[in-house]
Amino acid sequence: MSRIADVTVTPVAVKDAPLLTSIGVHQPYALRSIVEVRTGDGITGLGEAYGDDTTLHRLRTAAAALPGLDVFDLNGLAARVAAALAGVGAATPTELAGEASVAKAVASVVAPLEVACYDAQGRLLGRPVADLLGGRVRDAVPFSAYLFYRWAEHPRDPGYAPDGWGEALDPDGIVAQARRLVDEYGFASLKLKGGVRRPEEEAEAVQALRDAFPGHPLRLDPNANWTIETALRVLPALEGRLEYLEDPVPGRDGMAAIAARTGLPLATNMCVTAFEEIPEAVALGSVRVVLGDHHYWGGLRASQKLAGICETFGLGLSMHSNSHLGISLAAMTHLAAATPNLTYACDTHSPWQSEDVVEPGAIAIRDGSIAVPGGPGLGVELDRDALARLHEQYLRCGFRDRDDVAAMRVAVPGWTGHRPRF
Amino acid sequence: MSRIADVTVTPVAVKDAPLLTSIGVHQPYALRSIVEVRTGDGITGLGEAYGDDTTLHRLRTAAAALPGLDVFDLNGLAARVAAALAGVGAATPTELAGEASVAKAVASVVAPLEVACYDAQGRLLGRPVADLLGGRVRDAVPFSAYLFYRWAEHPRDPGYAPDGWGEALDPDGIVAQARRLVDEYGFASLKLKGGVRRPEEEAEAVQALRDAFPGHPLRLDPNANWTIETALRVLPALEGRLEYLEDPVPGRDGMAAIAARTGLPLATNMCVTAFEEIPEAVALGSVRVVLGDHHYWGGLRASQKLAGICETFGLGLSMHSNSHLGISLAAMTHLAAATPNLTYACDTHSPWQSEDVVEPGAIAIRDGSIAVPGGPGLGVELDRDALARLHEQYLRCGFRDRDDVAAMRVAVPGWTGHRPRF
Repeated sequence: MSRIADVTVTPVAVKDAPLLTSIGVHQPYALRSIVEVRTGDGITGLGEAYGDDTTLHRLRTAAAALPGLDVFDLNGLAARVAAALAGVGAATPTELAGEASVAKAVASVVAPLEVACYDAQGRLLGRPVADLLGGRVRDAVPFSAYLFYRWAEHPRDPGYAPDGWGEALDPDGIVAQARRLVDEYGFASLKLKGGVRRPEEEAEAVQALRDAFPGHPLRLDPNANWTIETALRVLPALEGRLEYLEDPVPGRDGMAAIAARTGLPLATNMCVTAFEEIPEAVALGSVRVVLGDHHYWGGLRASQKLAGICETFGLGLSMHSNSHLGISLAAMTHLAAATPNLTYACDTHSPWQSEDVVEPGAIAIRDGSIAVPGGPGLGVELDRDALARLHEQYLRCGFRDRDDVAAMRVAVPGWTGHRPRF
Repeated sequence: MSRIADVTVTPVAVKDAPLLTSIGVHQPYALRSIVEVRTGDGITGLGEAYGDDTTLHRLRTAAAALPGLDVFDLNGLAARVAAALAGVGAATPTELAGEASVAKAVASVVAPLEVACYDAQGRLLGRPVADLLGGRVRDAVPFSAYLFYRWAEHPRDPGYAPDGWGEALDPDGIVAQARRLVDEYGFASLKLKGGVRRPEEEAEAVQALRDAFPGHPLRLDPNANWTIETALRVLPALEGRLEYLEDPVPGRDGMAAIAARTGLPLATNMCVTAFEEIPEAVALGSVRVVLGDHHYWGGLRASQKLAGICETFGLGLSMHSNSHLGISLAAMTHLAAATPNLTYACDTHSPWQSEDVVEPGAIAIRDGSIAVPGGPGLGVELDRDALARLHEQYLRCGFRDRDDVAAMRVAVPGWTGHRPRF
């Protein structure tokens, strides 16, 4: 037995770029929670989650219930978290995972704790986490370049210098951004976060990328910001140019309506975000690719369960990203390495983050891929000075929830973020 | 790393009872393969499979490809087995797993090797296999009493004394058999292997069990030996008396036709026996309970994948059994202990087997359940004297394949085993 002695949860804030999204713009700081699970025999496992107040409260509520649990008892972990959150409720829907449910709330709290338990297991056994997930099927995991329409600076001075990437608001800007990302990181797949500019402009950006990078697979993600009519209008300009189109319209019915009218594979990280939503999506034929995300599907084992379902029902599997740090990047890498049918390049926001809580060097994107860390556990080490500094930054920055709408309102008074906008 | 140095596969034969099945009768000996995976660091992991010639040949072909593999690399195991069997083909359909396919052939060979790798992992880490499957959610796994119509003796003298259970060919005989099994083992759920007597007689046996054991959940398994017309005729006598009805008729379409006409849950281990068969069964609504069996679903991880699918699609999950020995019984117990939604008592043929290759005492049915072994790995040890003796018995007995039809033909010349018979 290797029993949990205590669990600490530390919120951090990291500088974030003014990346435009379907409902607004990124705030100057992204919030994350850093989870440390310490065992009685002196092992510490790391996990990472969203850093908003709701998540923090839930994580701490669950953390208090974990001392005494064997770090191998992942079924027990899920049961303890569910019991601890029984009184917390489903809370509000999130941008990230659609309709709220108790199951989703529990899954999002289990996830970072389970990652930390896996990290602890790996450290205890001297084995990489990928080994504990069935063994790596690839030594390096391909990631995609995550292209954003963006401003050069935040609309209100965040107290730090702009990141130097400049603005990208048209096809030329997107191609230039892609060029720099490809040059610096070697990405193959290119994903454009859409739902920001007029759909025809975004289709032009896709075409410009297609022309500039003829051999690179492309993706567009309008983030459910199109109506069915809009999507049907724009589809002909996208067909044959994308490896998949992500969430063009809201809802499983809307997605099914589009799917019935195009040969372009539709992908989602919005209308299928929990196991309870899969049967209807399968029956409707809403999607052909599911973008998993261990943060909200419930961890690494749950993600493997999702992978098994996708394999069984002939669905493609890709990986979604939210702003994240090195602990999650390592977890995503181990998971992807051990998942045979995760055959698409994974998304990551990494290039947009300049600060991290892990010691540099253990994981880095080279030739578009991350080599699976070979050390015990996740293979990353906490940089305690960085953790303290980024926690201080959290305390100072004033943000307590992600709110792209409010951030946009700073520049555009009266902005509602209403979707679908186009 | 803990790399495989060599793998040995030893066929054994154990005395078996004259149990009647839908297509015939058990032969005097049941055949099993005992798999030993030895690592370079001196650990031996145990697995167990069918013992027919086809399985033996495939196992040995795959075994030759395993030296050098890390026992944690279960994805690598599956890949090596698939590659090794690429030339072997799908071979013949089996009684047990419906239509033949390459995927099924690979799964049935991966299974015992994966169990042996898990046993080796557990021994290496000093952890029970259940810990490596996510942790036990129950300390003891309930099993069901497996009731058979049977003869007192085999039709041709097998050279050993009858087992003393006598014949059971009518409701009174089945109730008496159930009484003895319940008294000796404490079973709660009672399962009758049907498809043997006229369906009305079997319904009478169910009613007799219902009257004699009012608090015990009951199951009937006609093993696809009824036509749709027969099933519809007999259903009213079964409804309200069974926790589920197993495979009354052949095929997913047939099962769906029955499912549409009854509230009685239909279970299967015949029309859904591989992942490739699940989507159609879900679409048709053919079954409400799937009986998993790690031997043909591809091992313990594959069985957990099946469990995740059942949970996601609202299907019940139970566990099938074939004649097996203590290694498989231990594997079934660890798997069931770590599978939250395996809420039905598991099937086992154990009470009908008087010989075993494992040292006695580690696993035993008490109060209808088996306590999960707490020792490292599967928690059972190979009895090398028994292994040698039962391998000698294999060499002597002359059987090389399970063939219930041929065994019946000894008593009933011209018997064809054609199904559905009723």
